[in-house]
Amino acid sequence: MALYVQKFGGTSVGSVERIKAVAEKVKRFRDEGHQVVVVVSAMSGETNRLIELAGQINDEPTPREMDMLVSTGEQVTISLLAMALQKTGVPATSYTGAQVGIRTDSAHTKARIQRIETDDLREDLAEGQVVVVAGFQGVDEEGNITTLGRGGSDTTGVALAAALKADECQIYTDVDGVYTTDPRVCSKAQRLETITVEEMLELASLGSKVLQIRAVEFAGKYNVPLRVLSSFEDGPGTLIIADQDDEDSMEEPLISGIAFTANEAKLTLLNTPDVPGVASRILGPIADANIEVDMIVQNVAPAGDYTDFTFTVAKGDYKQTMRILKEQVLPDLGEGELRGDDNIAKVSLVGVGMRSHAGVASRMFRTLAEENINIRMVSTSEIKISVVIDEKQMELAVRALHRAFGLDKEDVESE
Amino acid sequence: MALYVQKFGGTSVGSVERIKAVAEKVKRFRDEGHQVVVVVSAMSGETNRLIELAGQINDEPTPREMDMLVSTGEQVTISLLAMALQKTGVPATSYTGAQVGIRTDSAHTKARIQRIETDDLREDLAEGQVVVVAGFQGVDEEGNITTLGRGGSDTTGVALAAALKADECQIYTDVDGVYTTDPRVCSKAQRLETITVEEMLELASLGSKVLQIRAVEFAGKYNVPLRVLSSFEDGPGTLIIADQDDEDSMEEPLISGIAFTANEAKLTLLNTPDVPGVASRILGPIADANIEVDMIVQNVAPAGDYTDFTFTVAKGDYKQTMRILKEQVLPDLGEGELRGDDNIAKVSLVGVGMRSHAGVASRMFRTLAEENINIRMVSTSEIKISVVIDEKQMELAVRALHRAFGLDKEDVESE
Repeated sequence: MALYVQKFGGTSVGSVERIKAVAEKVKRFRDEGHQVVVVVSAMSGETNRLIELAGQINDEPTPREMDMLVSTGEQVTISLLAMALQKTGVPATSYTGAQVGIRTDSAHTKARIQRIETDDLREDLAEGQVVVVAGFQGVDEEGNITTLGRGGSDTTGVALAAALKADECQIYTDVDGVYTTDPRVCSKAQRLETITVEEMLELASLGSKVLQIRAVEFAGKYNVPLRVLSSFEDGPGTLIIADQDDEDSMEEPLISGIAFTANEAKLTLLNTPDVPGVASRILGPIADANIEVDMIVQNVAPAGDYTDFTFTVAKGDYKQTMRILKEQVLPDLGEGELRGDDNIAKVSLVGVGMRSHAGVASRMFRTLAEENINIRMVSTSEIKISVVIDEKQMELAVRALHRAFGLDKEDVESE
Repeated sequence: MALYVQKFGGTSVGSVERIKAVAEKVKRFRDEGHQVVVVVSAMSGETNRLIELAGQINDEPTPREMDMLVSTGEQVTISLLAMALQKTGVPATSYTGAQVGIRTDSAHTKARIQRIETDDLREDLAEGQVVVVAGFQGVDEEGNITTLGRGGSDTTGVALAAALKADECQIYTDVDGVYTTDPRVCSKAQRLETITVEEMLELASLGSKVLQIRAVEFAGKYNVPLRVLSSFEDGPGTLIIADQDDEDSMEEPLISGIAFTANEAKLTLLNTPDVPGVASRILGPIADANIEVDMIVQNVAPAGDYTDFTFTVAKGDYKQTMRILKEQVLPDLGEGELRGDDNIAKVSLVGVGMRSHAGVASRMFRTLAEENINIRMVSTSEIKISVVIDEKQMELAVRALHRAFGLDKEDVESE
């Protein structure tokens, strides 16, 4: 007998039929003798419907009232799923985040879980109940309803699994696992049997939107075995495991996956004075405007006193960032020239294997050169190399790198 | 400065525009220096939508899960109204039934309020906040969400007014007050300035669906001044006052209003043995089937040993009641003959004034006789006389009685 926490996202519970299908799936696990806690999101479209309603009334509602509003979405799903389970003969009880005791801080719309009271859950499970918990939501010390931010249901699932010491947290989505890259771009992409938490974090933050990044962090921190599976077809999915020891890394493939995004824009300040504090003088006003910066590269000019400073932001923030640089930063720096480009793409290789292997970068650059792809910016971390290229060459780059690093389906089959 | 509890029903908050209009109305009271607690129902149609969703999944869901589901309806409204108030510059905070501490028993879908914790509300009011509370819902001792049954938002409003010792509980509806009878049937019906709790109870139970009967009982019990007003137009509405002393009754009009319904059916058992317990042997199986009986009349037959027993039930229960009588009651009684009629109407005169006036009944019967309306059944209480007549004569009877008892608009104006 195992204890599973199973999380189903909005698409998986997007209709009455889907909710019934989830109930059947949960019932199969319970019939095998397992204990099951189910975490669900709002039915797909429901959260947006509520946000739209709010928008028609107040363009700046207090975050507390937004949480009060959107938290109804999951509350509808938990009761419907409990009813669907009851219909199949499975005793089930639903709980809101507040009822189950998911205590958070008071940062409405982006609250963080502080602790979970699991006594009631354990009692219900011992009685043979399936427990259905509203994802994405909690309650602060004053009893206000909070939400964890979009995608927070994954975090609820992992946090519950950690608190209950569950055998596995299963995240059911509309894909059947984590892929080496997006199959829509590269037809030879393949599902990974396992991936490390660290790699998953890099892939998630780079745009493979399978799992919420906080949920993966949480799983890593509390050693929760995390599995991504499809709601719609049976299969083993991808198991996300704790980072492996270096000894194992010889058997690791060099690269686990290739992430990419065309949703960034690049800004460069040329010939700025190379004095201490210049970076913060550039990025300070950007941060003040709550614009998130992704890649940052600074080259010291050969001549000495001048430097080129380049960074990327989300495409949606591009115009505002340009304006801030023009109006607030350039006058302050006294010198320098501003350039921007929002027709770029970022392509990243991710893999713990590259830690112990030299030559990943050079093979990457050579592969891109062979395809006549010009590299505009490079940034590296221990298990990741990212390059910025022209947006129109993105898919070509992904496919070439996928082949060059031995990730293509046929390569594996022929091994 | 007064403290008002204002309750707005589903139609009054049925759209974004209506919610904004409610916010404007509440703001006007607050701008005059009053403290306001607002109680709201789910947006009209929302509760039915949720019940329909549930019906597609499970035709017999547990009442606990039904409450979990439908309570989201009011939660949506409270947050939207709080946002609308904030938009007009009025600080507002919303609370679910559980958050405000509306403690109920655990009778899901028809729970009763046991107590209300008002500390948080008072604090918010003292800070100048408008407090928006979800009607219709509460929480039991174990933290389960409960609902008070359809129309329970009125009860929430009155209970909050009682707990807060509010100066007035204002129930905003789609009518501008309580009328002497239904204006759609009698064009000369007029709005009452005041009505006693007792009269209101008789009118409500007889089919004038302005207020939930439990709310009126509650108001009477706790001496809460209750006012019915229109959400859509300004006006004084009708004030529902505690029952007046007998000394005042000389100034009372004889009759306050005329209620009527065509939604009942009549069943008669003729020539049943007149032995002790016969009534319970007839009504026992009806009660066991959860069918509510309204009027009951028993005539002792002149000959002695036999009696005629007549009662009414809701029209929708007519066929089932007939079947129960045929299959379970008649064989048990040994003798008797069953008759039924579902083409009847009940017309009732209500007024505390009739307590001290003889002759109301005779004037009623004379009026009906003059219109050639045959009376099929009579039942009286201290402040009410009801007659059962043919359904097709109902409107004629209402108009004739309205005129005969001096309720017509012109009569009042000529006084």
